[in-house]
Amino acid sequence: MHFFYTPDIDPSASVYQLSEDESKHAIRVMRLAVGDQVELIDGRGSFYKAEIADANPKRTNLRIVSKTADPHTRNHYLHIAIAPTKNIERLEWFLEKATEIGIDEISLIVTQRSERKEARVDRLEKIVVSAIKQSIKAWCPKINEVISLDKLIKAPFDGQKFITHCIETEKNSLPDLLQPKGRYLILIGPEGDFTPAEVDNALENGYKPITLGSSRLRTETAALEAVFEVNFLNR
Amino acid sequence: MHFFYTPDIDPSASVYQLSEDESKHAIRVMRLAVGDQVELIDGRGSFYKAEIADANPKRTNLRIVSKTADPHTRNHYLHIAIAPTKNIERLEWFLEKATEIGIDEISLIVTQRSERKEARVDRLEKIVVSAIKQSIKAWCPKINEVISLDKLIKAPFDGQKFITHCIETEKNSLPDLLQPKGRYLILIGPEGDFTPAEVDNALENGYKPITLGSSRLRTETAALEAVFEVNFLNR
Repeated sequence: MHFFYTPDIDPSASVYQLSEDESKHAIRVMRLAVGDQVELIDGRGSFYKAEIADANPKRTNLRIVSKTADPHTRNHYLHIAIAPTKNIERLEWFLEKATEIGIDEISLIVTQRSERKEARVDRLEKIVVSAIKQSIKAWCPKINEVISLDKLIKAPFDGQKFITHCIETEKNSLPDLLQPKGRYLILIGPEGDFTPAEVDNALENGYKPITLGSSRLRTETAALEAVFEVNFLNR
Repeated sequence: MHFFYTPDIDPSASVYQLSEDESKHAIRVMRLAVGDQVELIDGRGSFYKAEIADANPKRTNLRIVSKTADPHTRNHYLHIAIAPTKNIERLEWFLEKATEIGIDEISLIVTQRSERKEARVDRLEKIVVSAIKQSIKAWCPKINEVISLDKLIKAPFDGQKFITHCIETEKNSLPDLLQPKGRYLILIGPEGDFTPAEVDNALENGYKPITLGSSRLRTETAALEAVFEVNFLNR
């Protein structure tokens, strides 16, 4: 089946026009013709069956045949705030894997020891969209623009807030702290870890320190371990 | 600290000579000099503190100062048998991440729907060694040469045996089946899944079918999810 990501689709519409890029891809690359079946994902919880009504390679028109809600509705909300890795491929890999396993929102944070202070959200969104097509998910995680750690820490969040860091203090693990079916925001530090001042700032603002096991993990592996644990504990 | 992987070290030795490659790296790249401290990992559970005794760029001699056993001894044994991915980088990512999180043995299997029927074990070993240095682990996972699925299935294994597949049948999840502190062998299929005949062959030979959650996962993500679950359930 051919999947298209159509975030701007009107849920009650009976027709949809693919973007110029998607039209070209559908007609020139996939060589779809009038009557061929395709599947649309709106990223907001619904799938649509559709068929090619006009195989125009610039403005392909589709006829919507049916709409179904994703049967795998998520029972929790996971927001990961991560310092982009020096090697951006490591962040991209995290995004792909987290999307497959289950994540709702990603914030990119700038910390004192961040080696990378920017990231192109449009590029990262493409990775996430490709992953939802691959794993057939109707929910598309939201990626926020880069934000300073301090600003993120002080922003309101209605749910449990956690911070991972390598400084030796008493920490609990997620199985001890996590309230199932909740909303969670987890901070993942840069390659050189958060500074003690950054950790203090988080703790003063209601974040709880957590450990993700005894292994020393890279930034993107720690983030993925957190995604795994939260999904696992909410099964 | 500078780490070197020294699988051939004699545990009772007081000196060690680095290989020609490692000598060049130590003296020409890291610019280490006589008296500089280094750390050795034997991949069999021990770390050694050593110092440069002779800074020869072809045959660097080290004096062993002390030896310590890894405090994080693993309490279980995990063997993953995976069909190498078409894009070998995906398998390499899996190996790096699995090594960080915890794995003991990897087999590369050829299945009926495998798109890749070979893989260079020496290249994969380099990735694993780099990951144990990065995550400071004293145990180096073993990578076996490529083997046919049938041969692997019929080989003896003293422990619990599981198979992941996408065919709709009754499956349990690891939290229901896994006996803690045990030995586990888990089969992960190729991009197009195992064939029904391959699944039957595994079941007839004592493998139990498992599910890794409701998400549709790529081969390397499924393998990593299995590594996560086994380590998590043995914490």
